[in-house]
Amino acid sequence: MQRYFIDQTVEVHETYTMDTEHIHHIKNVMRARVDDLFTVVDNKGIAYIVQLTDAENITFKVMEAIGDEVELPVDITLFSPLLKGEKMDVVVQKSTELGVSDFVLYKADRSVVKLNSKKEENRQKRYEKIATEAAEQSRRTKVPSLTFSGTLKSIDFSSFDLVLFANEDENLSGRSIKNVLNDFNGISIAVIFGPEGGFSKNEADLFKAYDNVALGRRILRAETAPLYALSVIGSFYE
Amino acid sequence: MQRYFIDQTVEVHETYTMDTEHIHHIKNVMRARVDDLFTVVDNKGIAYIVQLTDAENITFKVMEAIGDEVELPVDITLFSPLLKGEKMDVVVQKSTELGVSDFVLYKADRSVVKLNSKKEENRQKRYEKIATEAAEQSRRTKVPSLTFSGTLKSIDFSSFDLVLFANEDENLSGRSIKNVLNDFNGISIAVIFGPEGGFSKNEADLFKAYDNVALGRRILRAETAPLYALSVIGSFYE
Repeated sequence: MQRYFIDQTVEVHETYTMDTEHIHHIKNVMRARVDDLFTVVDNKGIAYIVQLTDAENITFKVMEAIGDEVELPVDITLFSPLLKGEKMDVVVQKSTELGVSDFVLYKADRSVVKLNSKKEENRQKRYEKIATEAAEQSRRTKVPSLTFSGTLKSIDFSSFDLVLFANEDENLSGRSIKNVLNDFNGISIAVIFGPEGGFSKNEADLFKAYDNVALGRRILRAETAPLYALSVIGSFYE
Repeated sequence: MQRYFIDQTVEVHETYTMDTEHIHHIKNVMRARVDDLFTVVDNKGIAYIVQLTDAENITFKVMEAIGDEVELPVDITLFSPLLKGEKMDVVVQKSTELGVSDFVLYKADRSVVKLNSKKEENRQKRYEKIATEAAEQSRRTKVPSLTFSGTLKSIDFSSFDLVLFANEDENLSGRSIKNVLNDFNGISIAVIFGPEGGFSKNEADLFKAYDNVALGRRILRAETAPLYALSVIGSFYE
């Protein structure tokens, strides 16, 4: 069933007008008719089955809430530098399918890609669109947020219950993710990945106090590492 | 250190001439000089550090075997239909990084992509090249094999110790991969994925006797599902 994220709070039995941004899709892509059913996720993150009541102005009646819990019981924030070319698209799309809560794109010492603020704004829109579509397709009730930040040094990690540092250079001496999670009872997890060229020494020194995690025994590409980590964290809880 | 898969069996202390196919890379890309070190993986899957002894004819002396075990302790054969466009490239590359042993590309009832035998041959070469490069980059000692096969019905799964069937339509009622692996002591695992449009009823019926596994609570795209499963299986053993 087609799913739309809307910027309203809705209640069962009530009728609402669809957010303008989705009207084109419903009318011209879905060619929806009166009585067609689709799913909306309201701005509280609750999913409902709704029925089209007016195919011209696109109003819908909320039929029932959907109880399926598809979100992970932990919030995972993925810290990644901007990766080259389509790799970033892949990470945003697949991490969203795999249940990530938030993306923070930081400036790595060895980042290959540098953007001015205008380009950063365009990229942000692009990635938010990819995340929204992936959340819809994977039937999530939450669209991950995405923000650009400064260097790792400028970020305060103290608000996270757990910080996992995925330093490929130290991969084989790291603890496995499942061992770390066995000892963990919190909610919020930060997972930090480096750029294609790895972390600088200054960056690695920042995380000496935290768990360095191993991502298996093979060297993973920069865009594969987050997908491995999210799969393993997800499977731990599901 | 640069790594080459060679079609010879080598022994420590002996000197060999490099396979012709790698000579261009060593001479013109690496611009190697006498005494430079690199890694070869011989046709028995053993990795060695070798030293260049002749930079013109590219001969090398085998210095020592590398003991690192980077291969998974189980053999995973990934059964997938041919996916559209670049999705297949992504699956081949990332599955290789994640430790897959063999790929079998079968003809699904709902396959979108159909190839004649000439095109199949070209695709096979393309995917083998992607798998070889990914194996080199991730420092594996084994390049996954890749074969095209007929329909699922024509394949004999009885030689596998474990068959995991990833039917997205029944995802939520499936067992988790880690629960299945907890009860498993064998070596060879088949994991079967469907095309973009899912399995046909006939195909699903073939696997009623096997474990249907859940891939988390979110719907994953056809090319994301194998990466999740391989990450979770890998993390179970490492």
